[in-house]
Amino acid sequence: MYRFSASTVLAIIFLLNTSLAQSQAMLGFSEPSSEKQSMLETAFEADLKAANLDNWMQRMAAQPHWVGTNYGKENAEWMAQQFKSWGYETKIERFDVLFPYPRTRVLELTAPAAYQAKLTAVAVEGDPYTAQGDALLPSYNAFSTDGDVEAELVYVNYGVPKDYEDLERLGIDVKGKIVIAKYYGSWRGIKPKLAAEKGAIGCIIYSDPADDGYVQGDVYPEGPFKNSTGVQRGSVMDMPLYPGDVLTPGYAATPDAKRLERTQAPTITKIPVLPISYGDARPLLEALKGPVAPASWKGGLPITYHIGPGPARVHLKLSFDWKLTPAYNVIATLKGSQYPDQWVLRGNHHDAWVHGAADPVSGMVALMEEARAIGALAKKGNRPRRTLVYCAWDAEEPGLIGSTEWVELHREELQKKAVAYINTDGNGRGFLRAGGSHSLQALVGEVAGSVTDPQTGVSVKERIIAKQLTEGEKDEFALYALGSGSDYTPFIQHAGIASLNLGYGGENEGGEYHTIYDTYSHYTRFKDPGFQYGVALANTAGRVVLRLANADVLPFEFGQWYTTVDGYLKELLGLSESMRETVEEHNKLVARNAYELSADPQKPLLKPTKMATVPYLDFSPVQNALLQLSQDIAKLKVEQWPALPAPDRDALNALLMRTEQALTEESGLPRRNWYKHQLYAPGFYTGYGVKTLPGVREAMEQKEWAEAQEEIHKLGKVLQRVHAHLEAIGSLGQ
Amino acid sequence: MYRFSASTVLAIIFLLNTSLAQSQAMLGFSEPSSEKQSMLETAFEADLKAANLDNWMQRMAAQPHWVGTNYGKENAEWMAQQFKSWGYETKIERFDVLFPYPRTRVLELTAPAAYQAKLTAVAVEGDPYTAQGDALLPSYNAFSTDGDVEAELVYVNYGVPKDYEDLERLGIDVKGKIVIAKYYGSWRGIKPKLAAEKGAIGCIIYSDPADDGYVQGDVYPEGPFKNSTGVQRGSVMDMPLYPGDVLTPGYAATPDAKRLERTQAPTITKIPVLPISYGDARPLLEALKGPVAPASWKGGLPITYHIGPGPARVHLKLSFDWKLTPAYNVIATLKGSQYPDQWVLRGNHHDAWVHGAADPVSGMVALMEEARAIGALAKKGNRPRRTLVYCAWDAEEPGLIGSTEWVELHREELQKKAVAYINTDGNGRGFLRAGGSHSLQALVGEVAGSVTDPQTGVSVKERIIAKQLTEGEKDEFALYALGSGSDYTPFIQHAGIASLNLGYGGENEGGEYHTIYDTYSHYTRFKDPGFQYGVALANTAGRVVLRLANADVLPFEFGQWYTTVDGYLKELLGLSESMRETVEEHNKLVARNAYELSADPQKPLLKPTKMATVPYLDFSPVQNALLQLSQDIAKLKVEQWPALPAPDRDALNALLMRTEQALTEESGLPRRNWYKHQLYAPGFYTGYGVKTLPGVREAMEQKEWAEAQEEIHKLGKVLQRVHAHLEAIGSLGQ
Repeated sequence: MYRFSASTVLAIIFLLNTSLAQSQAMLGFSEPSSEKQSMLETAFEADLKAANLDNWMQRMAAQPHWVGTNYGKENAEWMAQQFKSWGYETKIERFDVLFPYPRTRVLELTAPAAYQAKLTAVAVEGDPYTAQGDALLPSYNAFSTDGDVEAELVYVNYGVPKDYEDLERLGIDVKGKIVIAKYYGSWRGIKPKLAAEKGAIGCIIYSDPADDGYVQGDVYPEGPFKNSTGVQRGSVMDMPLYPGDVLTPGYAATPDAKRLERTQAPTITKIPVLPISYGDARPLLEALKGPVAPASWKGGLPITYHIGPGPARVHLKLSFDWKLTPAYNVIATLKGSQYPDQWVLRGNHHDAWVHGAADPVSGMVALMEEARAIGALAKKGNRPRRTLVYCAWDAEEPGLIGSTEWVELHREELQKKAVAYINTDGNGRGFLRAGGSHSLQALVGEVAGSVTDPQTGVSVKERIIAKQLTEGEKDEFALYALGSGSDYTPFIQHAGIASLNLGYGGENEGGEYHTIYDTYSHYTRFKDPGFQYGVALANTAGRVVLRLANADVLPFEFGQWYTTVDGYLKELLGLSESMRETVEEHNKLVARNAYELSADPQKPLLKPTKMATVPYLDFSPVQNALLQLSQDIAKLKVEQWPALPAPDRDALNALLMRTEQALTEESGLPRRNWYKHQLYAPGFYTGYGVKTLPGVREAMEQKEWAEAQEEIHKLGKVLQRVHAHLEAIGSLGQ
Repeated sequence: MYRFSASTVLAIIFLLNTSLAQSQAMLGFSEPSSEKQSMLETAFEADLKAANLDNWMQRMAAQPHWVGTNYGKENAEWMAQQFKSWGYETKIERFDVLFPYPRTRVLELTAPAAYQAKLTAVAVEGDPYTAQGDALLPSYNAFSTDGDVEAELVYVNYGVPKDYEDLERLGIDVKGKIVIAKYYGSWRGIKPKLAAEKGAIGCIIYSDPADDGYVQGDVYPEGPFKNSTGVQRGSVMDMPLYPGDVLTPGYAATPDAKRLERTQAPTITKIPVLPISYGDARPLLEALKGPVAPASWKGGLPITYHIGPGPARVHLKLSFDWKLTPAYNVIATLKGSQYPDQWVLRGNHHDAWVHGAADPVSGMVALMEEARAIGALAKKGNRPRRTLVYCAWDAEEPGLIGSTEWVELHREELQKKAVAYINTDGNGRGFLRAGGSHSLQALVGEVAGSVTDPQTGVSVKERIIAKQLTEGEKDEFALYALGSGSDYTPFIQHAGIASLNLGYGGENEGGEYHTIYDTYSHYTRFKDPGFQYGVALANTAGRVVLRLANADVLPFEFGQWYTTVDGYLKELLGLSESMRETVEEHNKLVARNAYELSADPQKPLLKPTKMATVPYLDFSPVQNALLQLSQDIAKLKVEQWPALPAPDRDALNALLMRTEQALTEESGLPRRNWYKHQLYAPGFYTGYGVKTLPGVREAMEQKEWAEAQEEIHKLGKVLQRVHAHLEAIGSLGQ
């Protein structure tokens, strides 16, 4: 054991302080640039005005504005004018995309009693927006196929794979039936997709009060949750296959694009699907008999949940106006003073299902306020060094269409010029929720440390970590991995552009999502009264944008990236083990006849059979590549980069902005080559829910062992490519 | 590595088979006695008739028969005659016990709207028993105090300690309020006890549909669960303090007994308490405002559960006829042919709240059929070697009164003569559930291996183990530890007589417990159609009785006993560690201000403060005693015992039958000296729920560290006494 003298201790403290001071320079900035940037961000923050967000939301969410509406077009034109007035070069890019408007919506119980579903949410007192009658978009699921079916009903819980396993054990087949599934548990589009795979001929999705109705809290207008008439609209397009216009997969829906026949479009559902309220669902569910639903399937209606099939029979008839509809993306550019061909992209969609005060307007107005303040700084001589591209996407709701078509059209240019894409969407009171490319985690963590939480006065980083700690999670700021559900998808997963998705929430709960109740009245009572978190979002995203725009060296960081990816690998190793143990345990119980003996003979279950053993996979290609990467990353002299001569920094930046592309593979994921990123993808059977290392993970989950092994090799090669890329970066930064 | 020749292998197989054949002799029996016993049990089983159970249930459950009713007395007299006709010496022992009959029951919502609770369950079609009108006992909680209170209402979830911690964090005080608590989560008597400790002035208990109503399954009469009018009656006497007559604690309620003043009786509640249906609860709960209840508090009513206090105000007025009431225990004795002064006791209560088809008649008629068949064998010359005492207890429902008074009266004689007490109570379709003294675990496991499950054809042991395996539990038969809730309590916990509680269930779910719906109609539709499990219970308990009665050496076994007790100690060591870690983790989060930062400022919580560190306790007195015991037990030559000369066996048996008494301590548990057993007790704050090593465990749970240390020393001394006892046994069995 050493003993330090007092002077040694002092010297150490001095050294620590010095290094602390050094480390306070922003990531990617030299100390002088960092100080300058800090002043800039302070000025930026000081100029953000909640009143703007409020006024603009009142304007944009005054009327329904789904894609193709006049009001949607007016919003786009008005936004374009706004951006222009703030100093941006602005254009509207139009695509012509297939969009279905509901023509016929019939749902009726035909046996054992008759009930005609109302399919209409009621206007509520104190919220004039909900009383706009025919101007409101009828509730439906966009990209349901047309259909006219009648059959016995089966309740399938959330309609996810696990639920069908349970049904199989109960000996219940949905073939030829109509299923009724609850919202939640997966992205909605998975429900009709899986139901059709299982042979069902129709699908009803309803909002159970346990999930976002009275079980959660008081219902609208008394509280924020769903009353018995509220219906969640939403797309059921098979987005995990490809998002965007269903007729132009992988290329832009320009006027002259060659389009698929609608009947050939693989992302339209195979069976008709309709969303309903719990008021309409109750008579249907109440009419079911058959086994009582398992405990975990039960919802909040005051009934005993039975599975069926029947005796409830339902008739479902749907037809749609399938029309090419113009989608208007607003693209506003502020050319960079120093690197005009390095683009920092920033986007939010502007189309809504109805008024969309929360989704998307709350995010849109934050983006606009951010753009306005940055424009104002530019006018005063603080033009960003890199080019900023502010985007307001149309047709996000039906399937990320506006952004996808735009990325498909501009993919080549984007892959040359894009530094990163920062997305926002609905926003509300609560905690910073940040997802994205993990090479940006250090940057976002740094920014989160500099943004003050409006309610507590600590940084938003400290607040989210406090929450993590009370939930037994880690003492570090982390980005979640991006699945899908907003406009970052084409950027990161198709084009390989480093992306972020930023938003606040967690104290903005409610049941208004995609209903007629997502209004300015609802928002200002329950989601973000005073727009404090709208301002916080503008502050957060704006600082990220400004740092990316002004950094001496682009603030990508690979230490945290490596730890995260290595964590994903460890998850897969654990998954392999746990799947093996599960199968062994199961087979042991089958051999003991334990399932049969423990089951209630009056509630017969299918006799379980032995499962195939889980083979050991060779993970070494990924393990070795990651080992190599850890060494590459350890060699990077990141602290020295901002002080390098300009040409070296330019060369470094040129490489850094393309690192994310090294993580993509042009051949894409198995059976869905639109998805090219090898670290992140929306799950084929989860929808929005992310799968990390998706090629390997999904093959394992589906027990496709040969494919899993192939995907390990493919991932290994991709990581080798990243190794070469980081080696090149390392050699430049010496 | 060894290699065996073929002949060696054969020799080993031969040896294994031989030892297997040897080990097939029943525990406590020589091989010849074992064979004889096996034939006897076969004959016993063959004589059991489901039709008897059916007929007797129809008779006994024809009318309501709570303690003090004419029909209850008739049942007792009829049973006495039955026993007599089967060859038993039979008597009825009467005690005069305090029993409250409801005179006034008023519950009304007085603000913000008016609602008068109906307090009456409706008759249902197809069940004539439910239509007996005024003959049905009104719903109430026996041993609620009289009271007339009006106050704001507070919803307290299950009304257990954890719930009051949650309320405290929310800043909600129940002082001066009336609380409404759900049934379940604890024994009901804990709810008013704790509410009164917290300052509430009244308590309402209701059955939420999530617990035993429509959420669980179809309601009566369509299914077995509670409809909106069903009310669970039940005692709220403070049984964890002492059970039995409230006026004669620790001694028998004989005619001349000195009785406490009623106002001095410590086991009557401090505040009035009334049970209600979910139909009556709904208007009360719906009228509450204040914070929305936490997720885990929510029930199955179609409302948003708020906590209050108020604006709901309720008026609760209760008064009772407090009368000394005769309780009639039926005691039927079959004198042993060889050891008349060694008693095997067997009991079930006969009083019900209303008709009590399931509770208690289903168990009572199984006991009777068992007694009948054993009597018939005796008449044919197969009289048991030891004396059998069959008991039908009165006044179990209001507080284990009949059995407690009887044990208190006969305690001295019992402690000399009792070998064991075997209890049953309500019974139904499903799995063997056996609890009791762990020195009897090996015996019960052996018997369970010889009883065939009526539905699957395997042994009931194999079936329960299959269930354990599918639930991730152990591959061994085990007895649960006895808390309270039926008539074994005075035997084991007060008198130190080895006890068992046997029953079948798990496939007999329903909501009829203590309601007017616990009828013959309900039972034969939902609980045990065909009385197959009634026969299985008679078979199981009868075999246990017959083995205890006829064994050469009493079939107590200490290997499994030791493992179990050592397991309890390990739990306490784990508890100590986990409490320490929890406090440290909590204090860390308090220091970080994490609770405050992560809380929603619009839903204010009390700021948590640091908790006192959990000290290390000295467990060595118990650890060393157990070490000693493991050595004592290893030395016992159990296999040789049945072959010992008769005088040695007699001496052994005399010691063996008193081992359980060595586990008691006359001074009892802290603050409740009626409870003398040092391994098992009902929890002071759980009610029926068991606490093992209760002195130490409850002190730890209450963070009374000095008391915990004292109790460790006390337990160490008790285990030393067991050591001396086992040493004596070991020296005899050489």
